[in-house]
Amino acid sequence: MQKRIDLNLLKYLERRRSMVDRALKRWIPGENEFPREVHKAMRYSLFAGGKRIRPILTLAAAEAVGGRAADVLPAACSLELIHTYSLIHDDLPAMDNDDLRRGKPTSHKIFGEALAILAGDALLTEAFHLLTRADLMKNVSPRRRLQATCQIARAAGSLGMVGGQVMDILSEGKEMERHLLEYIHSHKTGALITASVCAGAIAGGAAARQYKALNGYGEKLGLAFQIIDDLLDVQGDVSKLGKAVRKDNIQKKATYPALLGISSSHRLAESLVEEALACIESFNQRANPLREIAQFILKRTN
Amino acid sequence: MQKRIDLNLLKYLERRRSMVDRALKRWIPGENEFPREVHKAMRYSLFAGGKRIRPILTLAAAEAVGGRAADVLPAACSLELIHTYSLIHDDLPAMDNDDLRRGKPTSHKIFGEALAILAGDALLTEAFHLLTRADLMKNVSPRRRLQATCQIARAAGSLGMVGGQVMDILSEGKEMERHLLEYIHSHKTGALITASVCAGAIAGGAAARQYKALNGYGEKLGLAFQIIDDLLDVQGDVSKLGKAVRKDNIQKKATYPALLGISSSHRLAESLVEEALACIESFNQRANPLREIAQFILKRTN
Repeated sequence: MQKRIDLNLLKYLERRRSMVDRALKRWIPGENEFPREVHKAMRYSLFAGGKRIRPILTLAAAEAVGGRAADVLPAACSLELIHTYSLIHDDLPAMDNDDLRRGKPTSHKIFGEALAILAGDALLTEAFHLLTRADLMKNVSPRRRLQATCQIARAAGSLGMVGGQVMDILSEGKEMERHLLEYIHSHKTGALITASVCAGAIAGGAAARQYKALNGYGEKLGLAFQIIDDLLDVQGDVSKLGKAVRKDNIQKKATYPALLGISSSHRLAESLVEEALACIESFNQRANPLREIAQFILKRTN
Repeated sequence: MQKRIDLNLLKYLERRRSMVDRALKRWIPGENEFPREVHKAMRYSLFAGGKRIRPILTLAAAEAVGGRAADVLPAACSLELIHTYSLIHDDLPAMDNDDLRRGKPTSHKIFGEALAILAGDALLTEAFHLLTRADLMKNVSPRRRLQATCQIARAAGSLGMVGGQVMDILSEGKEMERHLLEYIHSHKTGALITASVCAGAIAGGAAARQYKALNGYGEKLGLAFQIIDDLLDVQGDVSKLGKAVRKDNIQKKATYPALLGISSSHRLAESLVEEALACIESFNQRANPLREIAQFILKRTN
């Protein structure tokens, strides 16, 4: 039975991923648009095999409150653009100095540092373009679009994702206390995952109580997601992950396994997923994809 | 008479600059907000003595169509945030590798490359936060706010400012044809100046015809502004400009004086300003600040 659910979920995730990919291909400037170099760099990272977890959460959250996935698709795509820009900038020599991402050379390895920085800048900017274009999201009220955009901007900025990356960089090689580790994780990864859920909820037409429940779900899920990421980095297999494994340990980066050990970290992720599920307990079956995604996160291998 | 007008304009610009500065100080996270390092870096570049031309144009354009400056102040500030982020990233070692900006060490010289990249990212993101916050711009309709935000995002992205910077970097040291030089200037500098005017027009409540006229004004002005910038770089004095003079020539960068000569470049800037003025000829005296700013740009010395 468990296996059958997983198979259906995998099919669901695959359908959603291809829906997001088609939309991104349509809405992002083509490789032949001038200047071609930057559009090539933007698309190189954007179509490097991402799982599209963030946009899929946006679509699922909109549906959980009775909205339509197609209506919020640009908002969903904007979160993938922001996620992709953050990976390009994180990989830069001045930051984590990574040569490999999703099994492929990182942006600056292919296009050089200047283009990688600019492709990241352009992806971030394009996210806000998608969120505000007059020809898109016509079934979402301007007020709700502004609200969703504001949430995303706040989650991505210096009080959110960028703040998490700043502390990750600054604490490298230092002794790490748990509250700082929690800050880094909840901001660097958690904030954008929470915003993915919240943006979908707002754009999908959530009432205040639904919004609050989904916000809680998103927060728990974001933290669980990062803990599993840390665990995969310790236990994972380079061929599956497509990036350098155990790099975090070598660079003495803050991770949950390093602080709590492997089995405690896994138990923590499990209990966070249970708390996430509890947040949306009162939702009807439209929230089932959100429920299944939360459980799936514990089992992911890449 | 001419001198008196200039004196009044200088007072006007000074008042507006301090209005923008006060707003930026109020709305941007304080230096004591966590993580302090990134907020310090953001504020370091933001309050390094910028002239605030872009936000002042936004305020003046809103007033030219009968809007109130105070109502569009967050949109005005967002343009300064985007301008500042672009300077930080342009100065990076991987880009123009500049040590000095407005007479002070550049961001990466003070905070290191990683923090400079992240402070730039955060400023860009904060621009879209300011444009969409529910507690700001309450007198501008959500629809107009979305429109203004979309214009700004388009102007700042890969089809606008970032595209211009990409071609500037890629064409360094190469023979430059005039159409490419025009592309670089109209995108790298022009697009954001035009968007500053357009965002003010939209948020200030412009009718379609007013918007079209101001868009034309903004385009001509943006190009004139960059030509004067090039001329100042050739003729200027390092103590006034606070940056390395003649650097563009040393790096064989594309400039109008290099292509057309100094006096032809100046004549071109003059005729562009005349064309800008012609675009807003039918406007009443509320557009006088826009008229005076256009004339002032020809005379600026820094």
